[in-house]
Amino acid sequence: MRVEIKEHERVDDLQRCGYKIIQNPEAFCFGMDAVLLSSFAKVFEKERAIDLGTGNGIIPILLRGKTAGRDFTGLEIQEESAAMARRSVMLNDLESDINIVTGDIVGASALFGAAAFDVVTSNPPYMIGMHGIKNPDDAKAIARHEIKCTFDDIAREASKLLKEKGRFYLVHRPFRLPELFETMKKYKLEPKRMIMVYPYVDKEPNMVLIEGIKGGRARLTVEKPLIVYKETNVYTDEIYDIYGY
Amino acid sequence: MRVEIKEHERVDDLQRCGYKIIQNPEAFCFGMDAVLLSSFAKVFEKERAIDLGTGNGIIPILLRGKTAGRDFTGLEIQEESAAMARRSVMLNDLESDINIVTGDIVGASALFGAAAFDVVTSNPPYMIGMHGIKNPDDAKAIARHEIKCTFDDIAREASKLLKEKGRFYLVHRPFRLPELFETMKKYKLEPKRMIMVYPYVDKEPNMVLIEGIKGGRARLTVEKPLIVYKETNVYTDEIYDIYGY
Repeated sequence: MRVEIKEHERVDDLQRCGYKIIQNPEAFCFGMDAVLLSSFAKVFEKERAIDLGTGNGIIPILLRGKTAGRDFTGLEIQEESAAMARRSVMLNDLESDINIVTGDIVGASALFGAAAFDVVTSNPPYMIGMHGIKNPDDAKAIARHEIKCTFDDIAREASKLLKEKGRFYLVHRPFRLPELFETMKKYKLEPKRMIMVYPYVDKEPNMVLIEGIKGGRARLTVEKPLIVYKETNVYTDEIYDIYGY
Repeated sequence: MRVEIKEHERVDDLQRCGYKIIQNPEAFCFGMDAVLLSSFAKVFEKERAIDLGTGNGIIPILLRGKTAGRDFTGLEIQEESAAMARRSVMLNDLESDINIVTGDIVGASALFGAAAFDVVTSNPPYMIGMHGIKNPDDAKAIARHEIKCTFDDIAREASKLLKEKGRFYLVHRPFRLPELFETMKKYKLEPKRMIMVYPYVDKEPNMVLIEGIKGGRARLTVEKPLIVYKETNVYTDEIYDIYGY
């Protein structure tokens, strides 16, 4: 099958099952946060998983490569990104396992129905409000800022989409941690597992990975720290493992 | 002045301003958590600070040695511990700077009045409920389990005791983090700063240090990780600095 690669687009190798991904560097390319989330999340055989705000589809594609899950949905509001994600799915012959849907997170549970999934993942926009935004239709702005949806929307819809004891996996910024926990608890997504991601062993963390369980009892396991670099430009062994080199 | 040292008690050197502390190993000895809290907390000149559940007075004494603060109160419900703390204060000639009060955290704001302090510190009982407790009057049980007060009590009283923009410093266990944040927010003690304490760089954290600001705006700074040991029985340089060796 021939898959169209447009001008400005490039095809990157994901170092996982030979999978590739189409990206447009002028719009938005996936970052380490998506890769870490796909290693943090667990999807077991016969489970249904949905990624809220899937962008170019990086998380469903990586999860298809890393887990036993075979039933993935990616929801993306921007048609251009969703179309690119569909072409990546075709490029990897994964049409039977990954379904990319164009649609709004805010209405996700109306679209798919309540308790339809075992797993929800999300790598949402980190920034609150519109500070410094020139063009609110810009794909990068939408991916980075809470323009189309807030974290409250994501947690609310995730909770509705999940079965009881279903799992919500999130990557976000540590500066919003108290609010993330508060909002997750508000929607009965009890925080159960967390990893702080530190760029270096002596630097402030710049990412946090959180697993919530719908209807879980209150008790958080904080795992060992994930350190990204052991020295400039040299990843730690753990990061090399996650990237699959 | 002669200070009585009772049978079963010992006197430990705090490696700070020549200060010493009286401890009863059969009751409860201070741990690294108290030492880390006293380095995490900031008390500036002319500020009034209170330690809720001060035990043998370790935190006010260490804060007197490490900060510019000269007005410390330690509140302790167990008369025997409070009396021991008073003797340690005398032993260090700190009666003019540290006042040990026997009393209940649950009624602290009634005892001292609202908005009476700039800083509240607490190294509270970590464990929920009475699981495994044989004697609820046992000093160790009271120090470790929420027998006499809950974290909700501590946060509520801390908030009342603090002036607007006053600072609440806490050491606790990571497994309760979502609930700690939730309760702090409930009482307008916004979590503003946090350090995860990992025993080793590749182990789960066993302590968390949190600073809340009364009426602060929502934005948390998570600091670099604090690693305790670089190898078995060998502290990291950071821990040696904190202990003042």
